[in-house]
Amino acid sequence: MARIVKKFGGTSVADIDHIKAVAERVKREVDAGHQVTVVLSAMAGVTDQMVDHTRRVGGLVDDREYDVVVSAGEQVTSGLLAMTLQDMGVPSRSWLGWQIPIRTDGVHGKARIESIDTGELEKSLARGEVPVVAGFQGLGPGNRITTLGRGGTDTTAVALAAALNAERCDIHTDVDGVYTADPRIVAKARKLDRITYEEMLEMASLGAKVLQARAVELAMKRGVRLQVLSSHGDAPGTMIVHEEEVMEKQQVSSITYKRDEAKITLTRVADRPGVAASIFGPLADDSINVDMIVQNVSADGKTTDLTFTVTRADLQRAVASLENRRDDLGYADLLSDSNVVKVSVVGVGMRSHAGVAQRMFKALADEGINIQVISTSEIKVSVLIDEASTERAITALHDAYGLDAE
Amino acid sequence: MARIVKKFGGTSVADIDHIKAVAERVKREVDAGHQVTVVLSAMAGVTDQMVDHTRRVGGLVDDREYDVVVSAGEQVTSGLLAMTLQDMGVPSRSWLGWQIPIRTDGVHGKARIESIDTGELEKSLARGEVPVVAGFQGLGPGNRITTLGRGGTDTTAVALAAALNAERCDIHTDVDGVYTADPRIVAKARKLDRITYEEMLEMASLGAKVLQARAVELAMKRGVRLQVLSSHGDAPGTMIVHEEEVMEKQQVSSITYKRDEAKITLTRVADRPGVAASIFGPLADDSINVDMIVQNVSADGKTTDLTFTVTRADLQRAVASLENRRDDLGYADLLSDSNVVKVSVVGVGMRSHAGVAQRMFKALADEGINIQVISTSEIKVSVLIDEASTERAITALHDAYGLDAE
Repeated sequence: MARIVKKFGGTSVADIDHIKAVAERVKREVDAGHQVTVVLSAMAGVTDQMVDHTRRVGGLVDDREYDVVVSAGEQVTSGLLAMTLQDMGVPSRSWLGWQIPIRTDGVHGKARIESIDTGELEKSLARGEVPVVAGFQGLGPGNRITTLGRGGTDTTAVALAAALNAERCDIHTDVDGVYTADPRIVAKARKLDRITYEEMLEMASLGAKVLQARAVELAMKRGVRLQVLSSHGDAPGTMIVHEEEVMEKQQVSSITYKRDEAKITLTRVADRPGVAASIFGPLADDSINVDMIVQNVSADGKTTDLTFTVTRADLQRAVASLENRRDDLGYADLLSDSNVVKVSVVGVGMRSHAGVAQRMFKALADEGINIQVISTSEIKVSVLIDEASTERAITALHDAYGLDAE
Repeated sequence: MARIVKKFGGTSVADIDHIKAVAERVKREVDAGHQVTVVLSAMAGVTDQMVDHTRRVGGLVDDREYDVVVSAGEQVTSGLLAMTLQDMGVPSRSWLGWQIPIRTDGVHGKARIESIDTGELEKSLARGEVPVVAGFQGLGPGNRITTLGRGGTDTTAVALAAALNAERCDIHTDVDGVYTADPRIVAKARKLDRITYEEMLEMASLGAKVLQARAVELAMKRGVRLQVLSSHGDAPGTMIVHEEEVMEKQQVSSITYKRDEAKITLTRVADRPGVAASIFGPLADDSINVDMIVQNVSADGKTTDLTFTVTRADLQRAVASLENRRDDLGYADLLSDSNVVKVSVVGVGMRSHAGVAQRMFKALADEGINIQVISTSEIKVSVLIDEASTERAITALHDAYGLDAE
């Protein structure tokens, strides 16, 4: 008998038929003798509708009330699933954040879990029930409902798995695991049996949407064994594990891409200490995240060109902010381009293998694809390229690192 | 400065524009120096949709989980209104049943309020906030959400008004008050300035939909001054008061009707002690409410005809139950008819005036309308007639009692 936490997202509980399918899935685990706790999202689209309601109210949105409104969806699905399980003969009950409670800090809209009191849940499990926990929500200071922000339900699942000492946390999604590349782009993409937390974390940050980076980080920190698998069927998915558990470390385990990038170049910026701070400080104050940054070597010793990327959603605000401060910053031109994509190769094996970046650059050069910006970390190399070349680049890199081979 | 509790129903908060209108209405009271607490229903249709979800789950519906699902709608509207008020510069916060808490018994789906802890609400009011309370919901044993059943939000409002010692409880609805008859039927129907609890209670039981009987009963018991008024505009509505406060007691204050009736007749039932119990006992066990009952005088001294009414929704179940027990009950025929309507005249003045019923019977006879069943109480006379005659009967009675005169 294993203790398992299973998370199902919004598309898995989109309507009553889907909820029944989830219940069947859970019942099979229970029938196999496992002790299961379920964590649910709201029905697909419901949270977005609630967010839209709050936007239509007006300018000032109180984060505390925002959380009251947007947390209602998970309440509905958790009650419905508990009911459905009971109807199938599986004892079950729903748990809202405040009932457990899952205590969080008071940062409404993106609260962090501080503690989970598992006393009542343990009793429920001991009674042979399947607890169905509303994801994404907690209890903050002053007895108020908090929500955990984007991907919060993944985080609830991982935190619960840690608190309950579960043997595994299953994240059920639309796809049946983590792939070497997006199968819609690379026909030869292969599902990975295992991947390390570090790799998954890079992939989540680099645009792979199967898991939220925050949940992966928490799982890594708390040693929770994560599995990404399909909502349908019983095939095993991809296990996310510690580096020691991966036998043969591939140099590169996957190719990811992120379309949500835009490039800004400031030409002839003064090449003196403090200039970067004066450019990026105000952007940070406006909550604009800057990702890749390249500063060219100064040609004349006095000025330099500075290129960096922001998300496309922030591009307009970033440009406006920089134009407002043009006189202070003293650049010649501001160029922006949102027809770019960031393509990355990720793999823990990179640490011990030289030449990973070289192989990437060569593969792209062979395809005639120009690299605009490069950034690297210990276990990934990212390049910014023309968006039109996305498919060709990913396919070429998948081949170059031999990812289709078992 | 008055302390007022204001309740708005589902059509008053049907969308963001309606919620903004409610906020404007509340703001005017606050600007006038009043201390306002608001109680809200879910957006019109949302609770029905939730109920439908629970029905689609399957046969077995756990009442506790049902309450988790159907209480979500009030959470959404209360958060949205608090936000909207803040946006208009009115300090406000939402309160869910468990946060106050409003403690109830454990009868999920139709719980009764046992106590309301007003400590936090009083603090909120003292801070100058407008508390926006989610109606219809409470906190039951075992820290679980309970709901109060049909019309529960009216009940929440009245119970809060009592607990907070409010000077008045305003029930905002689609109509601007209580009328002498349904204005859609009787063009000359007149809005009443005042009506007694007893009359309102009879009217609510007799099909007038402006207020739930349970809320009126609670208001009467706890001495809460109720006002029924429009959600729009600031015109005064109808005050529901103690009998002493009504200057001149009219014999009849209003004519009501209830279409949701069906008639069952059992012919040649044995006329002996205990037969009524054997017929109605099992119906009560099946939660089928029997309303009007008439037993004819026995013609032969051995058998009698028994006629009674049930709600149309229960007719099929009632007939099946009676047919199953045909041999035990020993009746000759079972006749049923759902083309009937119950028309009633209501008034506390009836107590001191003879001839109220006679005037009713004469007015209907003059119209050639046949009376099928009669039932009376201290302050009302009800008759069951052919449904097709509804409009004619109500108009004739409205005239007969001179209700159009001020």
